[in-house]
Amino acid sequence: MADHNTAREFDIISKYFRPLVKDVDEALGLADDAAVLSVPPTHQLVVTTDAIVEGVHFLPSLSAEDVAYKLVGVNLSDLAAMGAMPKAVFLAAQFTPDTSESWIEAFAAGLKAALAPSGAQLLGGDTVSTPGPLAFTLTALGFVKTGQALKRSGAHVGDLVFATGTIGDGALGLAMLRGELEGLSPQHAAHLAGRYARPEPRWDFAQVLADLGLATACVDVSDGLVADLNHICSASGVAAIVEAEQVLLSDAANAVVETSAERLKDVLTGGDDYELVFTAPSSALGALEELAESMQLPLSVIGHIEAADSGGDGLAGLRVRVLDAHGADLELGPGGYQHL
Amino acid sequence: MADHNTAREFDIISKYFRPLVKDVDEALGLADDAAVLSVPPTHQLVVTTDAIVEGVHFLPSLSAEDVAYKLVGVNLSDLAAMGAMPKAVFLAAQFTPDTSESWIEAFAAGLKAALAPSGAQLLGGDTVSTPGPLAFTLTALGFVKTGQALKRSGAHVGDLVFATGTIGDGALGLAMLRGELEGLSPQHAAHLAGRYARPEPRWDFAQVLADLGLATACVDVSDGLVADLNHICSASGVAAIVEAEQVLLSDAANAVVETSAERLKDVLTGGDDYELVFTAPSSALGALEELAESMQLPLSVIGHIEAADSGGDGLAGLRVRVLDAHGADLELGPGGYQHL
Repeated sequence: MADHNTAREFDIISKYFRPLVKDVDEALGLADDAAVLSVPPTHQLVVTTDAIVEGVHFLPSLSAEDVAYKLVGVNLSDLAAMGAMPKAVFLAAQFTPDTSESWIEAFAAGLKAALAPSGAQLLGGDTVSTPGPLAFTLTALGFVKTGQALKRSGAHVGDLVFATGTIGDGALGLAMLRGELEGLSPQHAAHLAGRYARPEPRWDFAQVLADLGLATACVDVSDGLVADLNHICSASGVAAIVEAEQVLLSDAANAVVETSAERLKDVLTGGDDYELVFTAPSSALGALEELAESMQLPLSVIGHIEAADSGGDGLAGLRVRVLDAHGADLELGPGGYQHL
Repeated sequence: MADHNTAREFDIISKYFRPLVKDVDEALGLADDAAVLSVPPTHQLVVTTDAIVEGVHFLPSLSAEDVAYKLVGVNLSDLAAMGAMPKAVFLAAQFTPDTSESWIEAFAAGLKAALAPSGAQLLGGDTVSTPGPLAFTLTALGFVKTGQALKRSGAHVGDLVFATGTIGDGALGLAMLRGELEGLSPQHAAHLAGRYARPEPRWDFAQVLADLGLATACVDVSDGLVADLNHICSASGVAAIVEAEQVLLSDAANAVVETSAERLKDVLTGGDDYELVFTAPSSALGALEELAESMQLPLSVIGHIEAADSGGDGLAGLRVRVLDAHGADLELGPGGYQHL
């Protein structure tokens, strides 16, 4: 946490970030050039990096705590997609001269709170000055049993497609915060806002999934259900059919879609859900349902895998077809997530 | 390398960054959410993150290749300070909509070239859009034999203070690029510019240093010789005396200081050298000189460690005193590196 810091940066590190690591040996008190950690010989290291930029990846109106939650959520969700247990994060924070100390204090508190459930530790980073916008890069390290990492490749024809939790809350939460959704009940509004701002990455479920070796491919829903499932299909050389009716929606998302049916498209392609979508043979269905129930996590079978040639080029080159209740293709457009 | 990418970002990754990892199994072709790698059971993992922002950490006039070299150099130098062998890097790149493809192409080429000597591999990252300025965060992972990592704490009273290479070229290179230095010969100008733009981190020397277990404390010269040696002193609870005459300068830096003696202050406090400063008992002198000679790396004894109370508060609270040829204290001011 050391190089090229101005007095203000040293001060920020010492006041707000060093307290987060005070009992962590590996961080060497943020006093060294780098952190040193041991990986159990039975495990492999899983590493991911994600950057979020104010106005591009998060609304400037988001609270400092929420920005921290989002940063952590996005990264731990990538670890979850690989079945890895989060262990350590490294933060590169770009603050502007106008960023207030209270904002930074709240950001550090959010970071601590967002990391707490998984036990992942802040082990180092860099605090630098920028004329703006605010930007944060987090690198997250996790451990997975050797050879057990979940990957995008590996889905087989005939596999079922599963999704954890509810889909679409992230995109609808963003739409709501932009003032695009009207007439929501306070409860529904709060639910969507919370899901957008404070994703709950599924590292706990994913870890057991990796240990059991039941999933053939896995991805987290960040770009959007369709785009992310398409990543699995591309990497696996297959195609997928999704039945829109089987995709689990929260009460809040259901209320939105009932009022404006065209919002179903946001649900299916909007992203920012940080749920898991994975494939597994139908023989694994019972075990998976049992696992999900034991973890009190909703789990839905939303479709199945077909041979690649059943994916139509007419759907913007996607290998994923989404069918409505009558078995007709839903027109979803390119399906790729577009930034704010 | 996956989350939340626009079409342009997917395109950039696929055209310029994926080719860098095409033969690296651990990166999974940048097609997954994270990289998976194995750490030898005999080694620990060393991790560092550094961010550089255009206009703050590098001049906008710097070429794309040089920015990449600087980014890699800064990070691998942090690994070197710990005695770790560089193994993998993760890049978070914030490009603006105006960043040309030729700039990105040159940046990727620079990244490849800067990583080549150490064999460290790009294993993943994130490419995002920003309204500006350009900013890059690199997280570097290295391996060090378990328990052998060099640290800042550990310097003992009586230890000698060593420095690799030449000191001050980075700061003088920056001064020159800002047009502050006049009358330099073309050779000297080229030397200083090169040292500023393309640091050569000492991971090769550092690794042997860690293996041999001869150094008691180590740091890389990024904030400036005095400030970085001060980090060792703070962490070790000691003070240091540096004899300015013993600090090795390049011919170019000597030429500058001969013309303007006050530039010696920049040499000693300017930073951006990415050399190593370390402490070791005098009994290690012979072995260290032999090692440096075998690696054709200049190595100087620039001072020694004293008890903490010999550090004067009069020198801005620093624990490092720098003496001139007559044994008088040099007045260096706060000695902390200030950004551009």
